[in-house]
Parts: sequence; structure tokens; C-alpha cells
Amino acid sequence: MTPVRSAGLVKGIGDDAAVIRPRGAGEYWVITTDMLVEEVDFRLNWTSARRLGARSLAVNLSDLAAVGARPRFFTISLALPAGIPERWILEFHKGAVEKGAAHGAALIGGDLSRAERIAVSIAAFGESLNRKILYRSGGKAGDILYVTGELGRSAAGLKLLLDGNADTASLPRKKAIRAHLDPEPRCRAGIWLAQSGLVSCMMDLSDGLSTDLPRLCTPGNLGAEILRVRLPVFSACANWGCDPLDLALNGGEDFELLFAVPARKASLLEKKYPKRLPPISRIGRLTTEPGKIWILSAGGRRDPLPPRGYDHFSHGF
Amino acid sequence: MTPVRSAGLVKGIGDDAAVIRPRGAGEYWVITTDMLVEEVDFRLNWTSARRLGARSLAVNLSDLAAVGARPRFFTISLALPAGIPERWILEFHKGAVEKGAAHGAALIGGDLSRAERIAVSIAAFGESLNRKILYRSGGKAGDILYVTGELGRSAAGLKLLLDGNADTASLPRKKAIRAHLDPEPRCRAGIWLAQSGLVSCMMDLSDGLSTDLPRLCTPGNLGAEILRVRLPVFSACANWGCDPLDLALNGGEDFELLFAVPARKASLLEKKYPKRLPPISRIGRLTTEPGKIWILSAGGRRDPLPPRGYDHFSHGF
Repeated sequence: MTPVRSAGLVKGIGDDAAVIRPRGAGEYWVITTDMLVEEVDFRLNWTSARRLGARSLAVNLSDLAAVGARPRFFTISLALPAGIPERWILEFHKGAVEKGAAHGAALIGGDLSRAERIAVSIAAFGESLNRKILYRSGGKAGDILYVTGELGRSAAGLKLLLDGNADTASLPRKKAIRAHLDPEPRCRAGIWLAQSGLVSCMMDLSDGLSTDLPRLCTPGNLGAEILRVRLPVFSACANWGCDPLDLALNGGEDFELLFAVPARKASLLEKKYPKRLPPISRIGRLTTEPGKIWILSAGGRRDPLPPRGYDHFSHGF
Repeated sequence: MTPVRSAGLVKGIGDDAAVIRPRGAGEYWVITTDMLVEEVDFRLNWTSARRLGARSLAVNLSDLAAVGARPRFFTISLALPAGIPERWILEFHKGAVEKGAAHGAALIGGDLSRAERIAVSIAAFGESLNRKILYRSGGKAGDILYVTGELGRSAAGLKLLLDGNADTASLPRKKAIRAHLDPEPRCRAGIWLAQSGLVSCMMDLSDGLSTDLPRLCTPGNLGAEILRVRLPVFSACANWGCDPLDLALNGGEDFELLFAVPARKASLLEKKYPKRLPPISRIGRLTTEPGKIWILSAGGRRDPLPPRGYDHFSHGF
């Protein structure tokens, strides 16, 4: 789809969200939309209606986090098969409204219709603070790359669910399953990073680092180097047959933030970054080699990192 | 779903669209969303991808027309089964973008995912002019009721499609099928009516007059009387076994506007209403009897008008 130009449009198709500037408004408004389809994006027997409502909104809020916008409003379109009880709809609604409230977003509209499988489409609206919005573009060669949180946790949870190992008292397993079923969008971290003025570009990790990182490189014709030892992998998942490194590189739906900081500002950012926010890890840097993504091992080995994350259009369960 | 209060929220759930006022902005912004699902809202063998794209946007633009907002932007979430060719997606995109351009709305974002059946969810954004927005509420007893265009045309087209009579050279049949597959949202009329300052309340007719009219009455605890002889029925459909009056009252998806005008302003409105816009018909009036909707025949007979239109949640093909 080709970008469009239109009065009031600040950023159109191609980033995590579209950005408009209503005439006269002090702030930019950010718009994002995502659809979740039963048996493709979720399975009913894995999740409660409430968690599904929360998750459906969370993936949209993550797009607002990705540009550093404050969540404000959202709408829900819900298509449901016959036989879904009213109680399910109310619980779904509750889950979405609770998640919205936790991040400052209010439900302002909706649409209910029939389908053979559940489909949820949410549009979320955020507001900039002082017109500070971060895009995928803006990075420069030499900028230091960071991620929030741990990578691969959601994919490790998905593995447990696929294997039928969800019912467990183990804390790491609980964390993994929660990361998959009820991810926490990094809205507060995104806003702080956008406000800091220290970040050059940002996006959220929805399809896995190996697939998403090239998207941060493309706008500036850049490449990247990742330091394997610096990756915040979710080590515990080795206990249930996962390769933590593989999931950190290629696992989808972590909804952590990936961002770059000019090298001269990196230590300032690390110093100022608040402890109350999800931890950040320095994982590598942007380079001048267009499209080349390398992973560097401790021993000095340098391997290409092919995109092996989630492709929304070729993949189901 | 309960209404919410939030800073900047002018009108939440319950009207045709939500209305917000971005801080500092001169105008209100109007947000609406609708989902269309294959085999529920459309059948692939009836329509081209281009027409489906156009229609998907049109039903959303009609919600903007319903409040008198100017269409500005829209996003598309599209879930597609495997095997849909790229050409189909491009044609769908073209249809939506063309329809948007015809009404001043630009595509600013999208999301593509997998599903077993096609699902389309669109969010559309409009802007007020001089903060003049019309709601379903605002009508008073005695106000004169009007509709734009002809009622029942889309349902008459649906009948032809269901009967497999779509392939015909007859002009009325073509008009009917077009009304169903490629409806024209009444954006210009809606904007003119909102700007006129003569209209007390407005909505679009998506589920049929008998089902939608009570929605215009409820906010003010009103009733209504419809004059049978004044209804702009689509008479031609009698030729293919339809009852024009039944379709005018109970047929869905006409996407015409229903609005009310204080009696003392009605003749001024009729005088000023531009000829270039779809014709309007005076069909009845709002009354003081809460929830009572009557239809008056020429002979003086007065019958209750039960809601027999489209119920999104109980109905498929």
C-alpha cells in the first residue's frame, strides 16, 4: 500500500501507528488497529474471555507504546459465533476495559456482529506529550540498540500451551504463559523514552527480534549487529525443551520495545532510565551496511541473523 | 456496555460514532468502526474485491454522515484465508481508497492477518465543521421526520442476489443491486444538514426504518408517527416479487439518513436544501408517547410499527 499525503496527516502507513494532527490541536493523535482471529491468534480453550479482552487491547496499546503515545481511547469490533453466552461477552468487555483503565484508555465505541469464528478488531487512539513521537525511522549508524524486558517469554509460554503443559505451579511457567496470554504493553516505558529526547527510533517487538530489527534498519538504509551475550533471554524455558536464544531471536509477541540511542547519549539514558520501569538491555548497535543483520558471539564469531520470526501472513498455529 | 467519562470525550458509546475533542483543537473528531464478515455480511461470489473494498468503507462513512462529520482518515484490518490472490487484495485496497477519495478520506493504516473466512474491520475518522455535530438525541415531540433517498432499495437488491437474478439489463434491478453491493454514504447531505442548524437529531438507516426509528426516539423518551403514503418506497421491486412497503419499513442497509426538524423550521429546510443532494422526504413526526411507533394509512388507520429490521446479532443469511 502506497503512502498517502493528506492535510493533518503527520505519519501514514508503514510505521507502528498513524499520526495525525487535528487542526489547532497542541498534540499529535496516534491511531492503530489490529485484528485477532480465533484459531489463528488465539484458542478459546487456552484463555478466559477476560484475558482475551485484555490481550486484544494490549496488542494495540503496544503499538501506541511503540511511538511513545499516551493511550486515550479505543473501539472494539467483535464478531461472534452463535452460542457464545452473554456472560462471555461481558467478561471480554471487562478484560478490555480493565486493561484500558490500567493504561488510561477508555472504551468509546463498538460493533457486534456474527461470524463462524471469533474475530476481534480494536482501534486504539493515543495522544502525544509535547508532540514527542518516535518512529521506526530516525536511527543512525552507530546508535546503540536496546530492548525492554526479556525476549522469548511469550513464545516459551506458547510452547507450554501447545504441549498442554499449561497447568503448573512453577513460577517461570506461569510467567511464560502469562506473557503469552496477557502481555503487558510497555506504555509507560515508551512514553518515558519518547519524552527523554535521547532516543532516535523505536518500535515494538511483535514478530520476533530477527524479523522486527530489519524493520528498524530499513528506513535509514542501515544494518545492525547484535551481541549474543547481551540478549536478555528467558533462560528458564530451557527446562521445558526450548532454546532460549532461538526464542529470544525468533519468538513473536513479546511486545517489548526495541529502540536506538545515539552512542554519546547512551550512558546518560542508562543513568536516567527509571528503576520502576521494565529493565532495559543494551543488545548491539546500528551499522552502515544496508540490510545486513549480524549476531556476534562471545568468541568473536559473526553470523548473519536471518528473519525467522512470525510472518502474519504465512503462519497460523 | 456502560458509557464512560473521560477528558476530551464529547460523546461515547451509544450513538452512530464516538466524538472526541483533542485538546486545543478547533474541531471535534468523530470515530467509528464496523466489521464485515464473509457469509454474514457479504458473499464473495456476489461482489468483486473492488466493490467489497468500497462497500466496507461506505458503511463506516455512513456513520460519519449520520453525525454530519467530514470524512478524513481510515484504517483497514483485513483477515484473509489462504489462497486469496494478491490481485484480490490490491483490488480491495483500490476500491476502498477510491471510495475514500470520493469523500475526502485517506487510508492511513492497516493490518493483514489470516482467517478461515474474510473479515474486514474498518475504523473511520471524521472532523466536525464549526463543531456542528448531530446526534440521535436532540429531537423533540412535534419535530418533523425526514429521510434521504428511497428506502428498501438495498433489500430489493439483496433479494435479487439471493434469488440468483443479479444478471440483468433492467435499470431498476441494476440500481437495486448497486444499492446493496456499493451503497453511497450520504456524507454531503449529512454535512449540509449538520451545518444548516435546522436539524434536531440524525442517524443513518442501517437496520431498516422500523428498527432504527425507535433508536432516534429512545434518547428523548419519544414516540413517532409515520405517514405510509409519504414513505419514499422503491416501487420497482414489486416487479420481482418484493413488497415495496415492507422493504421500506424493514429492509436494512439503505444507509440513507433519518433526521428530525422542528416543525417551525421545516419549510425553511425544504426551501434551502440543495437540489444537488439526494432528495429528502417528509415521512412523519416525533410524538410524546414514549416508545410508541405508529404507521398511519391514507384512510386514517393507525397501526403499531413493530421493529422488523435487521438484528446484527441474530441474523445471518
